[in-house]
Amino acid sequence: MPRLTDAERSELLPALDGWTLVEGRDALHKRFVFDDFNAAFGWMARVALAAEAMNHHPEWTNTYNRVEVTLATHDAKGITRRDVELAQRMDRMAAGLVKG
Amino acid sequence: MPRLTDAERSELLPALDGWTLVEGRDALHKRFVFDDFNAAFGWMARVALAAEAMNHHPEWTNTYNRVEVTLATHDAKGITRRDVELAQRMDRMAAGLVKG
Repeated sequence: MPRLTDAERSELLPALDGWTLVEGRDALHKRFVFDDFNAAFGWMARVALAAEAMNHHPEWTNTYNRVEVTLATHDAKGITRRDVELAQRMDRMAAGLVKG
Repeated sequence: MPRLTDAERSELLPALDGWTLVEGRDALHKRFVFDDFNAAFGWMARVALAAEAMNHHPEWTNTYNRVEVTLATHDAKGITRRDVELAQRMDRMAAGLVKG
């Protein structure tokens, strides 16, 4: 799985909802804020099952109702299509759960 | 729930298994390393149910098979007996799962 080409970056990354590039590292970042821990961890559990099935796992930090997610592909040392796919799945699973 | 007294610290904290004090903050920290993501997140799910029942939640970062945990009591701005209790429960739930 190769890193995204410049053309792929220009096409795919601006289409993502609220994901930003990490400073000093080729990775994606987004902060999700839920109503409470129950909603946050419930979402994490759904994402964990999807991530395990993809064999592609996030780096994530949870503090009560907040989850900070970083996505990158270890073997490629950067962002690949699998990160874009996982970002999109995370967004779909968070729909209706995150705070406005 | 008040912060631990000096006497309580001397009694309770050295008895914890592998938990250390965070630099510059009154909080406990431990790094758990599991065989893989499945084991790590399975443990997190068990801890999450316990934490929710206690209404006392960890700050934790998961990267594949590793989980970095920080425990402190927000309202008390430091370590309380609830942190000690959650640390002990986390350790019991990790028994047999963490790498030597």
